[in-house]
Amino acid sequence: MTYETHVSSGHPRAESIRIREQLTKHVETRVVALAGIIAHGRGEAFDYILGEKTILPAMRAISAAAAALLLAERPVVSVNGNTAALCARELVDLASVANAKLEVNLFHRLPGRESAIESLLIEAGAEEVLGVGDAASARLDEVHSDRRRVDPRGILIADTVFVPLEDGDRTEALRRMGKTVIAVDLNPLSRTAQLASITIVDNIVRAMPLLFSEVKKSRGLNAEELRTKVTTFSNKKALSDSMRLMEERLHALSEKGVYIQLHGRE
Amino acid sequence: MTYETHVSSGHPRAESIRIREQLTKHVETRVVALAGIIAHGRGEAFDYILGEKTILPAMRAISAAAAALLLAERPVVSVNGNTAALCARELVDLASVANAKLEVNLFHRLPGRESAIESLLIEAGAEEVLGVGDAASARLDEVHSDRRRVDPRGILIADTVFVPLEDGDRTEALRRMGKTVIAVDLNPLSRTAQLASITIVDNIVRAMPLLFSEVKKSRGLNAEELRTKVTTFSNKKALSDSMRLMEERLHALSEKGVYIQLHGRE
Repeated sequence: MTYETHVSSGHPRAESIRIREQLTKHVETRVVALAGIIAHGRGEAFDYILGEKTILPAMRAISAAAAALLLAERPVVSVNGNTAALCARELVDLASVANAKLEVNLFHRLPGRESAIESLLIEAGAEEVLGVGDAASARLDEVHSDRRRVDPRGILIADTVFVPLEDGDRTEALRRMGKTVIAVDLNPLSRTAQLASITIVDNIVRAMPLLFSEVKKSRGLNAEELRTKVTTFSNKKALSDSMRLMEERLHALSEKGVYIQLHGRE
Repeated sequence: MTYETHVSSGHPRAESIRIREQLTKHVETRVVALAGIIAHGRGEAFDYILGEKTILPAMRAISAAAAALLLAERPVVSVNGNTAALCARELVDLASVANAKLEVNLFHRLPGRESAIESLLIEAGAEEVLGVGDAASARLDEVHSDRRRVDPRGILIADTVFVPLEDGDRTEALRRMGKTVIAVDLNPLSRTAQLASITIVDNIVRAMPLLFSEVKKSRGLNAEELRTKVTTFSNKKALSDSMRLMEERLHALSEKGVYIQLHGRE
């Protein structure tokens, strides 16, 4: 069940609708699960409250994340349905510049889904994609979805995992295993946002190119400089600042009496 | 594409996941549209900020709504895909206790969709369901979706319409026709929330049983007492109070920064 809206580029919600269409067209290809569509709706609401722009705490998190990826010995970029549908190329570019492996990791491993995601990544230039089919032969404890299935060459032995649009269970499990977890999550209140080592509170579509540039730029730094970037970053403060910005914007919106109408349907 | 997750009741997000599953299983039956799935995600975001509990302004709105329904001469409970999927039984019970008619009203009238929703309501005990197929023969002005199509025996002649999870266009059209509109909307800034006569800022799943109990309880009151309940309720104040509670919660959380710790939860 798809729906199409051919909005003009001048429409006030054009970019948001374009992203939504990009995602919903991948429901049919099985890349995106219905749970992913719900998650996207959540993201839209939080993004609207944030003002649909990359806020300063997110830029700070991106800078720390870039440094953490470059410091890692075995970094992995974890890919799920929504991220593959929205930014396959950017994920491949990030893995390349950060010298990280790409691994498919899904909450719902439906038939054909992993290979559809693998195909998207390969079309986008990936040379190797971990975690597909039997390759995801290792198991994480205390994760009660297919997300527990990981590749022994990838997430299982990784020291730093980039997990955009993640669920709380796996974030928690990865942290308990002592890994550095970098998440992208528009909801600063989510379990993922709260439990990750570094949380980028931003729209994945905006954050990915920024993170790529930041990794590229930071490659010129030495280990000491990179470590300083990581240790001076406080995730608690970044989350706190993000919530305060949301609160301020809700206040401003309510003062103005501006409606939040996310091109709302039904 | 269905998915099943058998989350244990001890999971911190168990209730939210259960509701999600209830909704997504109805995408295949066509009861729920993809737009409804995205809208659910948006609702989840606002519910997070509210703290996923029924706040006092919502209880006040529920009390006024119960009185308005009992005072109405021709009350109608409008049913869309998401509400039918999440609380068919509660909608039927509410219509019964409030002596209201049930009418299907959809943004997208896809083939087979209306009858699937009608079936859900009948299974839940409804004896009559208006607005299905050719029965929705009247048209509302200035509504640019299938929501304009209404039943001449129902919404067209109603004096009070309960429109849970509504869109702004129709809320506005119904108000312009002089009807009392009762909405359930987690976003106090939406056009629906702003334009309804009585807005219950709450999750539909929590609000429906509360509204049912309140109508049942209020049946013992006389017309004068019911009218007082309606006239002393200010929707503007209820929305403003809801906004303030959301801001306060974000503020309190931003003070704490991280509130979910790796070892205990919230």
